[in-house]
Amino acid sequence: MIEAGLLLLPFLVGLIYNENTAFAFLEVAAVSFIVGFLLSIRKPSDFVFYLKEGCITTALSWIVISAVGALPFMITGEIPHFVDAFFETVSGFTTTGASILTDVEALSHASLFWRSFTHWVGGMGVLVFLLAIIPLSGGSNINLMKAESPGPSVGKLVPKIRTSAAILYEIYFGMTLLQIVLLLISRMDLFSALCITFGSAGTGGFGIKNSSCADYTAIQQWIIGVFMMLFGVNFNFYYFALHKDIKKSLKMEEVRWYIIIIASATLLIFLQIGKFYGGFEPRIRSAFFQVSSIITTTGFSTTDFNAWSPNCQVILLLIMCIGACAGSTGGGIKVSRTIILIKALGREIRSYVHPKSVRKIRIDGESVAEETVNSTMVYMAVYTAIFSISVFLVSLNGKSFLTSFSAVAATFNNIGPGLDLVGPASNYSMLSVASKLVLSFDMLAGRLEIFPMLLLLTPSVWKKTGRQETHNIKARML
Amino acid sequence: MIEAGLLLLPFLVGLIYNENTAFAFLEVAAVSFIVGFLLSIRKPSDFVFYLKEGCITTALSWIVISAVGALPFMITGEIPHFVDAFFETVSGFTTTGASILTDVEALSHASLFWRSFTHWVGGMGVLVFLLAIIPLSGGSNINLMKAESPGPSVGKLVPKIRTSAAILYEIYFGMTLLQIVLLLISRMDLFSALCITFGSAGTGGFGIKNSSCADYTAIQQWIIGVFMMLFGVNFNFYYFALHKDIKKSLKMEEVRWYIIIIASATLLIFLQIGKFYGGFEPRIRSAFFQVSSIITTTGFSTTDFNAWSPNCQVILLLIMCIGACAGSTGGGIKVSRTIILIKALGREIRSYVHPKSVRKIRIDGESVAEETVNSTMVYMAVYTAIFSISVFLVSLNGKSFLTSFSAVAATFNNIGPGLDLVGPASNYSMLSVASKLVLSFDMLAGRLEIFPMLLLLTPSVWKKTGRQETHNIKARML
Repeated sequence: MIEAGLLLLPFLVGLIYNENTAFAFLEVAAVSFIVGFLLSIRKPSDFVFYLKEGCITTALSWIVISAVGALPFMITGEIPHFVDAFFETVSGFTTTGASILTDVEALSHASLFWRSFTHWVGGMGVLVFLLAIIPLSGGSNINLMKAESPGPSVGKLVPKIRTSAAILYEIYFGMTLLQIVLLLISRMDLFSALCITFGSAGTGGFGIKNSSCADYTAIQQWIIGVFMMLFGVNFNFYYFALHKDIKKSLKMEEVRWYIIIIASATLLIFLQIGKFYGGFEPRIRSAFFQVSSIITTTGFSTTDFNAWSPNCQVILLLIMCIGACAGSTGGGIKVSRTIILIKALGREIRSYVHPKSVRKIRIDGESVAEETVNSTMVYMAVYTAIFSISVFLVSLNGKSFLTSFSAVAATFNNIGPGLDLVGPASNYSMLSVASKLVLSFDMLAGRLEIFPMLLLLTPSVWKKTGRQETHNIKARML
Repeated sequence: MIEAGLLLLPFLVGLIYNENTAFAFLEVAAVSFIVGFLLSIRKPSDFVFYLKEGCITTALSWIVISAVGALPFMITGEIPHFVDAFFETVSGFTTTGASILTDVEALSHASLFWRSFTHWVGGMGVLVFLLAIIPLSGGSNINLMKAESPGPSVGKLVPKIRTSAAILYEIYFGMTLLQIVLLLISRMDLFSALCITFGSAGTGGFGIKNSSCADYTAIQQWIIGVFMMLFGVNFNFYYFALHKDIKKSLKMEEVRWYIIIIASATLLIFLQIGKFYGGFEPRIRSAFFQVSSIITTTGFSTTDFNAWSPNCQVILLLIMCIGACAGSTGGGIKVSRTIILIKALGREIRSYVHPKSVRKIRIDGESVAEETVNSTMVYMAVYTAIFSISVFLVSLNGKSFLTSFSAVAATFNNIGPGLDLVGPASNYSMLSVASKLVLSFDMLAGRLEIFPMLLLLTPSVWKKTGRQETHNIKARML
């Protein structure tokens, strides 16, 4: 029912531009509202959510929302095949930005708007998910969720969860508005400004031109580049900066490392791409824009970085995997997880030197719980496992290793464009249906931090334990 | 001084074949014996080895041994540059088998023998290292060493460490002898049989022909393929099979998974390479030989698997990283570590379903200590980190992504040939000096299970803590 409401927006956009395609959105909105209404008549007897139910509900919701959101593309005939339309919509909601479209500019305004708008909803949706799941679960197994935002955890900003959710939304809205205004001032038209801002705010990356962001002016590219970077910052940073003290926000290790990584990657690439760009400004702009776009997992491009040296490509693949800060709209492994891993490694080395000293890992001066460290390790292991299996499956297409490898890296980390055949100047249309489904799974797994999607595939979730849990609830009620 | 003794063997081989190059080996043997003798005159006041000293000693020894072992190649002029000769010798001792030689057949018999013999010494050396370090260290920080051989640990075969070392050597010698005899029966000449057996026993992979193993008869290839697989099995398997009961050895989970992985990889590749091979036998032989060669990290080849489909290449890259069993001469992450990781992942998923149940991870029916699980995770994280940094550095060469990626995978896992430009039909000679040093580091790190080499690079090992440790020892002596 909420999605029905959201679908009215592209309908309105279509009306403004006098497009027939607009009514596809109205139809899907109407049908999904009616079905949603019918399904919600019967109230559940129990509103208790355990971690398991929370995860399963979230995973299923994302799949259903994507399937419904894919329908307008099919009805308008702009993306005739369901798997393609589903891939495109999953890519939108998960803020990936990988496209199967060969000609984006052929789409109607309504469809373009919907594509970009899914990014904005998806970027917000993750925060909803986070905040919705954490207060409900309880017990010791939400460690992985906690690992999402180490240091001051999201729920701890202010005592009430709902209040801090509201604050995060305010920040999200405010920054979105600011970027739209700045782009309008730089003389971009309203429609483009809206779509591009949705793409950067959700760190999604669907453009409205075939050339992505290459045709915008230098100033517009700088605005987009800087805002992508800003949306990849842990939102706690803004909260502290706005409501408490700036000192505390400047001390956040994750943000500092995030800036350091961006600066070093930009510099390293800047040094190697001299032959492609005439002057200092376009050269540094291209390097910064691409680094900002890739590390925040947005995926806009101003240039075909496929042509850059292999070393630049490896840098991009590395920052693809690191990703943005925890508590932002960006994807990837997250900077905070990387910091925990590096510190755990340092501790292991020190343990060889001082075998008896037991040291806590500290971030922002506070010690990190061992459970968080272990969960981070498990996360990394699962990440590697899913990554490997996906590359194996996608390589059945028979395309180059770099294509398969970067396609998985780009979807699993929710970036969008990969390298070689799925590079910024190309798209995902030539992959097989099976590969598109694998990559759709990867996009969802990447966005929902893997475990909800894995639970969907676990047989015991659906059978024995379901009964047992019900049994427990009944026992409690008695 | 021991190496001086070892160098006499290629000298003898050279004498038999009337080669002038033989005397290079005698010279180096003489000089290294004299230097070794002089250095060992002064006895240390303290024979206590802490884990730190053990690791550092091992890492330095491997570097020194490789540097000395590289000298004959330089003196004979067969490999004129030191970095090349060093790379080749490190590749030999670490049982990697990556070569910078474009024409192996141009080498003298003495040098060919020495190259292959380093594999056999290196394969044995790891066992020495393991057994030498474990009884010395004590304390809680040998977990990583324990992770090397979960289930019944190497040291626990029989009460006395030296006895079990002797048993392992007997197995190693016995199997080596058996392979030589079988190859002689299959009408291979003695010199080839010796070199090829050294290469398979140490899971090294230096061949004595430019075509590696492609020119041997089908029966000889089957013998080599099967023995590579056998040398990749956990040696405890043979110990149990010989001295205790066969049932226990057949129950070893690691060995069973090892066989399952080999069988599935062989089957998957077999299905995809129909167009390259005429009949059933050469097709299954090529698939099995290559899988056996790659998973045991040997690196012999009978065919140019670079030409196989991208999916086959991904399979090979995956089993490259998994590697052989713990407690064998093979490299890689090891099958047992992979099992632990998969079980830890399964436990994490179950914890979402049953939040309160705490389960131990079990292998061979015995529960694995949490410390071992955590160390395995840390190992994986370090592995990934070093892998990424190495790919980054090697990609500065400007070669294809697959070249850089597979060069690191092939050296870090001690396999030898990679894919694309460093594939089985090619070699490492076109890489830069810097890349060769990075890959040499990777070979040593892969062979010594990473941490000893990392300790070498840790400043605190060399400064402050050294004094502190000395201080502690002094305090104890007082």
